Amino acid sequence: MKTNYPDDSLSLHTDLYQINMAESYWADGIHNRKAIFELYFRKLPFGNGYAVFAGLERMLDYLKNFRFSKSDIEYLKQLGYQDDYIEYLKTVRFTGSMYSVVEGEIVFANEPLVRIEATLAEAQLIETALLNIVNYQTLIATKASRIKNIIPNDVAAEFGSRRAQEMDAAIWGARAAIIGGFNSTSNVRAGKLFNIPVSGTHAHAMVQAYKSEYEAFHSYAARHKDCVFLVDTYNTLKSGVPNAIRVAKELGDKINFIGIRLDSGDISFLSKEARKMLDEAGFKDAKIIVSNDLDEYTILNLKAQGAKVDSWGIGTKLITAYDQPALGAVYKIVSIENEFGEMEDTIKITANAEKVSTPGLKSLYRIINKANGKAEGDYIVMADEDPSSEERIKMFHPVHTFISKFVTNFEAQNLHQKVIDQGEVVYSSPSVMEMQKYAFERLDQLWDEYKRSLNPEEYPVDLSQKCWDNKMRNIQEVREMVQNMENM
Amino acid sequence: MKTNYPDDSLSLHTDLYQINMAESYWADGIHNRKAIFELYFRKLPFGNGYAVFAGLERMLDYLKNFRFSKSDIEYLKQLGYQDDYIEYLKTVRFTGSMYSVVEGEIVFANEPLVRIEATLAEAQLIETALLNIVNYQTLIATKASRIKNIIPNDVAAEFGSRRAQEMDAAIWGARAAIIGGFNSTSNVRAGKLFNIPVSGTHAHAMVQAYKSEYEAFHSYAARHKDCVFLVDTYNTLKSGVPNAIRVAKELGDKINFIGIRLDSGDISFLSKEARKMLDEAGFKDAKIIVSNDLDEYTILNLKAQGAKVDSWGIGTKLITAYDQPALGAVYKIVSIENEFGEMEDTIKITANAEKVSTPGLKSLYRIINKANGKAEGDYIVMADEDPSSEERIKMFHPVHTFISKFVTNFEAQNLHQKVIDQGEVVYSSPSVMEMQKYAFERLDQLWDEYKRSLNPEEYPVDLSQKCWDNKMRNIQEVREMVQNMENM
Repeated sequence: MKTNYPDDSLSLHTDLYQINMAESYWADGIHNRKAIFELYFRKLPFGNGYAVFAGLERMLDYLKNFRFSKSDIEYLKQLGYQDDYIEYLKTVRFTGSMYSVVEGEIVFANEPLVRIEATLAEAQLIETALLNIVNYQTLIATKASRIKNIIPNDVAAEFGSRRAQEMDAAIWGARAAIIGGFNSTSNVRAGKLFNIPVSGTHAHAMVQAYKSEYEAFHSYAARHKDCVFLVDTYNTLKSGVPNAIRVAKELGDKINFIGIRLDSGDISFLSKEARKMLDEAGFKDAKIIVSNDLDEYTILNLKAQGAKVDSWGIGTKLITAYDQPALGAVYKIVSIENEFGEMEDTIKITANAEKVSTPGLKSLYRIINKANGKAEGDYIVMADEDPSSEERIKMFHPVHTFISKFVTNFEAQNLHQKVIDQGEVVYSSPSVMEMQKYAFERLDQLWDEYKRSLNPEEYPVDLSQKCWDNKMRNIQEVREMVQNMENM
Repeated sequence: MKTNYPDDSLSLHTDLYQINMAESYWADGIHNRKAIFELYFRKLPFGNGYAVFAGLERMLDYLKNFRFSKSDIEYLKQLGYQDDYIEYLKTVRFTGSMYSVVEGEIVFANEPLVRIEATLAEAQLIETALLNIVNYQTLIATKASRIKNIIPNDVAAEFGSRRAQEMDAAIWGARAAIIGGFNSTSNVRAGKLFNIPVSGTHAHAMVQAYKSEYEAFHSYAARHKDCVFLVDTYNTLKSGVPNAIRVAKELGDKINFIGIRLDSGDISFLSKEARKMLDEAGFKDAKIIVSNDLDEYTILNLKAQGAKVDSWGIGTKLITAYDQPALGAVYKIVSIENEFGEMEDTIKITANAEKVSTPGLKSLYRIINKANGKAEGDYIVMADEDPSSEERIKMFHPVHTFISKFVTNFEAQNLHQKVIDQGEVVYSSPSVMEMQKYAFERLDQLWDEYKRSLNPEEYPVDLSQKCWDNKMRNIQEVREMVQNMENM
């Protein structure tokens, strides 16, 4: 089987055109010119008011190990790349620097989340993998946060492995869900790899295997102190709940009867009826756990109907980000060294206005109002600007520029951490649970208006005057270049 | 970093409850009882009339290597599983048998795609991974086939790695896209691992790196014989296309000017204008390749507008199955050995009628009409039935049972291949390109009415009389069991 390369490497996990472009750079001797690329997304997913960044640890691991393996090189030869270029590819490592927001950071559209400063060829070759990682992990962390927002006091468990888009999505999605605020995952491998809490009880198959629901529950209880019984294999109210109660009564203190799980049928009705039955049987503390294609919309509806649910198992809709399964982050060159060793800004125009990039080496700040500790907005500046040294800054909308405000008495937090310094990883990721804690803290600094799930206010992500002027100048230069083409 | 276990194994890629259930089975001494599980999905995705099965090779690889590694065992101990059970888990391998439809097979809802015959514990532990694999790969093969159906004579290239849901989705999705009929992928690692065609040219970043589009195209051409120039970095019609034509004219026979690529703007308008410009310049054979959030709907629209497109790069919408990012396949126990060593059928009822399973050991046949070579429908029978020995079979709708037909002069093809025999893999996968060929051949046997993208006819998937009677008997038994509960 072809898939069993002992030296399968992620370095080949790239689009063919990256290798083609790097070849031209190398052939023209410009492959070692310094280039700056930025990674960002253009639109927040799910109509949400913010996103939760994730993917940094995986990116660092990928970049640290970036080198084409022996079988990679063999394959590239097969594809027809010439020997001289192949010799160069053998030597390629990631020797650049990387700046990034940290995992769990609250982020927004059109701000540079990751900045790569590397040789042109290196920066090009790594694009696909970085986007592949951030696009998915940030999407799921955001979806999880969005769901958790509406059930802050309930337990939220990630249950989606079987519906995830292949295995990496299952485990990295589980990790992202925890960053976004979930309490646990069902995926045991994710629990092991990322040191995150795992949870789970039993399935319908167990009840079917014992035929008798009563026997199955007893058997489960004999070996597991903490018991949640799945009650909908045959008939929830006539069979499942009564059997759960019977077993709980018979075993008394021998088990910790946590509660029951519903996985089908009319959750609102069944949960209310089951609640009554549990209460009447004296199990007022028993929890009702539900699953079955849940997301923030069905949960809101169930809450509105007064469903008696304490804990939510969320699968498909979270792990696939069902209502918007791609984030659409991009990775754009913003500056490149010219033949004189000077950095020159670059821009991409195109017919879609929202696809015009913002040129130049930039930094990203969060402006915190010292009076109330809340975020006033994010502020993108040219890298030689330092807003924290200013008394008053003018923030204006990057599209509707007449919308502006002056901010004083602020703290300007640089959101970019240097995580790789000339090829060396200089950042050590905190634990996933610490990332979750950080995300919750950062969300506390946002006004509620940005956090509601429906029609949130737009959080300001503004350019500094210098940054804006630079962008306008670059657009003008391209206009003139196109004009010259027409006059040729 | 926790993720770097040298012995990371996929065996732990399961839901915690599987390990909990296996513990009860083991503690009760029923873990080695023979169990039959079936894998199937309940509804075709995208409103399509069929699905293309994929995932078998990956499943076989997973099952062949199923064993808990040292670090897996350590982790399970940490979770609190007791030593006696841990000792058992150390010994677990997949020793059962597996029957499956092959990759590229055209399949439908509610038919057993995979059948596992194994010990109860083994069959339980592998559920999550099997579903994770089939759910995604079959989904993408189906989406690819659906897209390819509307552009049978154009080139379809998979471009989605950067938007895929993490890395496994990128590579296995690329492979599934080829099975479904795509011509190539941009993912180089997928090309290497699965021996499938790769394609790609250059990106906007290259034009920006050279500043001058003209120079960038020249530079690309200097090193690549086959040239496709991306023309929308600055201005498609005023700069991109003229520069592409200029370079193509200057280099003449030195390059193979394949054509241009459009990645933004009004594709319909730009493609028509670019076509005129290319034709007028004498490049009537130059192709126009487009990308930019395409799927079957946008392609149909562009075709209706007379867009001049020869080749389609499909990314996000294919690799994430954007309009329905999960297939929803399930894995249900249908039969289990009792204490006397006899197999007994099992059923799951629940309040959602469509979730009622079909009990018993079953086989799956495709009924081909010998007169015209077309499929009359699929036919699910009890395993001891052999429709190929019958002169005439009665096929009836599994929900609307009064809809029925008699079929004669047919060939009954058993769709289940034995792929694992008591733990030993006895099936060798063909190449991915052969799977694609097979899928095309099998599609030819379907009437067009099942293949149209909008409102296709429902293909018959019928139960034999014996299979139906068995299901009804099992439902009746559960009804009586629930009745007895009520009378207690």
